[in-house]
Amino acid sequence: MKVITISREFGSGGRELGKRLADALHVPCHDEQIIEMIAQENGFDQQYVANVSESSMEAAYPMTIGNRFAAMPAVPIMDQPIRVAVAQRRIIEELAAKGDCVVVGRCADVILRDLHPLNLFVYADMDSKVRRCMERAKEEENLTYKEMVRKIKQVDKGRAHHRLMYDDGKWGAKECYHLCINTSGREIKAMVPAIAQFCKDWFNQQ
Amino acid sequence: MKVITISREFGSGGRELGKRLADALHVPCHDEQIIEMIAQENGFDQQYVANVSESSMEAAYPMTIGNRFAAMPAVPIMDQPIRVAVAQRRIIEELAAKGDCVVVGRCADVILRDLHPLNLFVYADMDSKVRRCMERAKEEENLTYKEMVRKIKQVDKGRAHHRLMYDDGKWGAKECYHLCINTSGREIKAMVPAIAQFCKDWFNQQ
Repeated sequence: MKVITISREFGSGGRELGKRLADALHVPCHDEQIIEMIAQENGFDQQYVANVSESSMEAAYPMTIGNRFAAMPAVPIMDQPIRVAVAQRRIIEELAAKGDCVVVGRCADVILRDLHPLNLFVYADMDSKVRRCMERAKEEENLTYKEMVRKIKQVDKGRAHHRLMYDDGKWGAKECYHLCINTSGREIKAMVPAIAQFCKDWFNQQ
Repeated sequence: MKVITISREFGSGGRELGKRLADALHVPCHDEQIIEMIAQENGFDQQYVANVSESSMEAAYPMTIGNRFAAMPAVPIMDQPIRVAVAQRRIIEELAAKGDCVVVGRCADVILRDLHPLNLFVYADMDSKVRRCMERAKEEENLTYKEMVRKIKQVDKGRAHHRLMYDDGKWGAKECYHLCINTSGREIKAMVPAIAQFCKDWFNQQ
């Protein structure tokens, strides 16, 4: 089984890299589809699932509840983030079991550990990330540079926290990954052929 | 000018990767040759230069002198590490000015910053590094596993300190490099073609 996971800083182009890499390797790329499946199965809003699936548990609860009552008997609203987390794990495992693939985000590197995936981390300097976000995300067009920096930091903080639910390894620490790719000021498209080659050679050496 | 610098953890196979990468790209690899040149020019012992050229200034002085007197007027023994550092910078600049190349270690990433080098960092988990060291370094054959771990940590601590003399950026922090390559349990040889491709594409996109 050849599974490649992509962890990435928000705005680093990791999602684009994942899609292009999957195309180059002729395998499916599992990304937003995971969100859609979780939302559909549980009757949740997709945006809600997207938020929860890469944030800390605390962030998933309304502020007024917080985590002080996290040990209380489950009530629907408290249940939801846990249900998302459970569904996420199961769906990622099912998708990976279907065959070789690329999985973007959502702690797939940890969830699929037993399959010995090749784990990539994609990062960039803040300026590149802000520029990429400004260019791509239409709904973010009204954010100032400063607001975008704040948003990027917030999303990545959520991702880091989220990973801690699954594993002690630190999100973004190079030791947790096989290859860390800095996309600052680079065109993702131009980087993909070499990375695809790296992945092929990696699995050939297994 | 296409310059690739390799920074690496001791025992990660970074030197081998540098040599093989240079061969694949048909450019020279500057590594121990830098040490030889500094030693020859200054009439120093090669082993002494090797130690000093990747350690902190403090480590370069005899224990009994230490850095308390570092501000004293220079005496020959105090002068030597500074002479090495100055020669190192000049020699690396001269070698890079000759043409496209790979430079292994010795803060070339910082020294050659104005040439916009492609900076790689090579690392591995401790177990892989110890095994690699045990296999390769004949003079180290008598070290126990524990002693080898200590040596690896010591050398890398020196490299981290050494980099601080040149730059604020943290040695080994992925933000300082364009690509970070984890060689744990891998054959360097099998990784080189893809990395060579990455380098070629990188400079083609400049």
